Amino acid sequence: MVQLIAYADRFGGSLRGLRDLLDGPLAGAFGGVHVLPFYPPFDGADAGFDPDDHLAVDPRLGTWDDVAALARGRDVVADLIVNHVSDRSAAFRDEPDMFLTFDRVFPDGATADDLLAITRPRPGLPFTRATAGGRQRLLWTTFTPHQVDLDVHHPTARAYLSRVLRRLAGCGVRMVRLDAVGYTVKTAGTSCFLTPETFAFVDDLAAEARGLGLRVLAEVHAHHRFAVEAAAHVDRVYDFVLAPLVLHTVFTGDAGPLRRWLAMRPANTVTVLDTHDGLGMVDAAGVLAPAQIEAVVERISANSGGTSVASRVPGGVYQVSCTSFDALGRDDRAYLLARLLHLFVPGVPQVYYVGLLAGRNAPFTGADAREINRRRYTAEEVDDALRQPVVATLLELVRLRSTHPAFAGEFALGDDPDGELLLAWRNGAATAELRVDPADRAWRATFTGAAGTLTYR
Amino acid sequence: MVQLIAYADRFGGSLRGLRDLLDGPLAGAFGGVHVLPFYPPFDGADAGFDPDDHLAVDPRLGTWDDVAALARGRDVVADLIVNHVSDRSAAFRDEPDMFLTFDRVFPDGATADDLLAITRPRPGLPFTRATAGGRQRLLWTTFTPHQVDLDVHHPTARAYLSRVLRRLAGCGVRMVRLDAVGYTVKTAGTSCFLTPETFAFVDDLAAEARGLGLRVLAEVHAHHRFAVEAAAHVDRVYDFVLAPLVLHTVFTGDAGPLRRWLAMRPANTVTVLDTHDGLGMVDAAGVLAPAQIEAVVERISANSGGTSVASRVPGGVYQVSCTSFDALGRDDRAYLLARLLHLFVPGVPQVYYVGLLAGRNAPFTGADAREINRRRYTAEEVDDALRQPVVATLLELVRLRSTHPAFAGEFALGDDPDGELLLAWRNGAATAELRVDPADRAWRATFTGAAGTLTYR
Repeated sequence: MVQLIAYADRFGGSLRGLRDLLDGPLAGAFGGVHVLPFYPPFDGADAGFDPDDHLAVDPRLGTWDDVAALARGRDVVADLIVNHVSDRSAAFRDEPDMFLTFDRVFPDGATADDLLAITRPRPGLPFTRATAGGRQRLLWTTFTPHQVDLDVHHPTARAYLSRVLRRLAGCGVRMVRLDAVGYTVKTAGTSCFLTPETFAFVDDLAAEARGLGLRVLAEVHAHHRFAVEAAAHVDRVYDFVLAPLVLHTVFTGDAGPLRRWLAMRPANTVTVLDTHDGLGMVDAAGVLAPAQIEAVVERISANSGGTSVASRVPGGVYQVSCTSFDALGRDDRAYLLARLLHLFVPGVPQVYYVGLLAGRNAPFTGADAREINRRRYTAEEVDDALRQPVVATLLELVRLRSTHPAFAGEFALGDDPDGELLLAWRNGAATAELRVDPADRAWRATFTGAAGTLTYR
Repeated sequence: MVQLIAYADRFGGSLRGLRDLLDGPLAGAFGGVHVLPFYPPFDGADAGFDPDDHLAVDPRLGTWDDVAALARGRDVVADLIVNHVSDRSAAFRDEPDMFLTFDRVFPDGATADDLLAITRPRPGLPFTRATAGGRQRLLWTTFTPHQVDLDVHHPTARAYLSRVLRRLAGCGVRMVRLDAVGYTVKTAGTSCFLTPETFAFVDDLAAEARGLGLRVLAEVHAHHRFAVEAAAHVDRVYDFVLAPLVLHTVFTGDAGPLRRWLAMRPANTVTVLDTHDGLGMVDAAGVLAPAQIEAVVERISANSGGTSVASRVPGGVYQVSCTSFDALGRDDRAYLLARLLHLFVPGVPQVYYVGLLAGRNAPFTGADAREINRRRYTAEEVDDALRQPVVATLLELVRLRSTHPAFAGEFALGDDPDGELLLAWRNGAATAELRVDPADRAWRATFTGAAGTLTYR
């Protein structure tokens, strides 16, 4: 079944409000929900990914009982912020030794080559000077200076992660999303990103999670070979390649890269067209050519009237902040085609709340570009958005993807590489087919079952 | 004679406009002017301290001929931005080897202790990864990632600094201000701040400047012992301790710390109450107690109605952004007392244009706090400001400081440590005396000369 991705505060106003939406106007559409971080404060500098207390629910959003209520009858996905802890947290104040320092990785010092080898999507080095536990330390800070990386091999840090896993499992959470998991283990002389040592840690953490009845979703924004490799170690990985490929297909009519990716991608994925982060472009490297990626970025900019923001790293665009509806030029048929491709590709489709509501870009204020696609909806605005025809149709398609028996069957990709693109699901007599003519982007989706045939075009 | 500190764009609108003010309403007051950076772009990310081309005048401000015209009949002070160059500059593109990298200082690597020893008024490490000259480099960036530190020992970098010195001398500039000079030389295993190796470089640069007829002013914001040490190597250093001491004296009536500082400070100073940077608090450490510094910071905040901004570093307040007039609660008599203390202390007094005009704090926009005290004046606003009584009186006092013969004589500090504070200048029959009763902050300034006696109280 399809899952929703949402902030409780921005879509529903609270955990209870989010549940009311899922049980009310969205009933029957979503089998699960990834609730973005609800730990206090949900509105910190990194919008919840810098909690002060990973073991608590922000009281402005509700309680652990509300999480448990949300988890009854649906799969809740929750973040395990495994890489770092806020420097305002009690954990940092009370247990400074559970955090990683430069000298723990480089006891004999680091050379320029050692430091240049470290993977980081920012220009500086991931180190911050601070006094903690009565002495000056050079903390390892992969993200901001206020997000201090755990030493995941330190017994206290490992116990802290175990406590969070048990708390989540105890409330009925079904899947933990390992946020930024690629950065968790640092080994001198390596890229410090998804190395064999990282996978050994992921295996250990995943085994513990599974023992508690949790499944494990890995978040890896990087060249797709990393996600392919990670897929063997966890229950699911995000397919972040799909979104740029879908956009490329819809923008150009060239389905070749999408076909190639469908043949090589791992099976155990969560698929997304949009998330709380930007549209990942770094993930498409090697499937799309650099010029094709630049063309997608430019087309998104043109389609959105210049309101999208591309975040660049040396070598190209890392991600583009833009709503999926604006990226597709607010063209209902193009948007539905993109969503159909998303929904028909194997995996667990997740739909971001702003995309579900065909939301528009928020103005870029110069702060975090990702806020462009993190709109805060009032109840009235949700009602209004749901009345848009494109949203009503999308919601029907999501319900079909979640409930039509064909999707419990076998998937096949049509084998005519130059002609029509055909994505087909068959389960006995039940079928669901998406046919796209790459040349003129005409499409038709047909759902056949005991109740007859439904066609969208 | 007293000198003015001003941005040409914010006070006069251009180099010519600044000259018109000095020759017009300000005639006779200032013997010199420190023109803040006029290199292109004067309005970059660091308000001129990140030039693209240190050998050019921003055409929006004028030409080198305008600099030369300004320098006729008065001492022009210009910045030599000796520590770094913008990463947008031709110098960085064309000559990447003249910039400092991690491996040039630490060819065998650096330990955590090496890195923790580096002095820097920011939390991270001063390194930025960039591709330059066809290879990945770990650049040394003391300030922002876009201000790349020179390797001042590299012949190309040294030649670049020599070219700038010759250009400034060739236009009649009389003094170069060595911006951020404490950070220029990095030596492994040291604080990399005003080490013996730094002083060796300063000696070399100062000798070259003097050979060109330039005097040398060092800017050092740090514990005052550094400025005292630097004073032996250059023509003048800023006395940044004076401003917090003057404020402490006026706020509390306690003249003890000011008396102690007057007894230990170097003779060859430039004195300031305000500059384009914040009021330096780090400089007063060791002369004022930490609690006294905090009390000054709090009083500035209260006096300014909460519009000042204190920038903190581990260990205390680094600087406070606030106009000097707001810091003194917009109390004309308190302000004139502070200015009289400033003007009577030995050294070359420099008066910042916003302070000269008794300017108010600009709203803090969340960007650079120092913009609070960097107001941009239109010609009309300058005229209006000059009509304020407190400004008219201040201008009279500045003219007296610049022209009264007493100040060419001997300075003496009254020797009654518990009674009246007396700062006295005597040159034959000419005298200038400032008497302050610390208890009730009553004050009287008396100027006696051939033309009779003038008294301010």
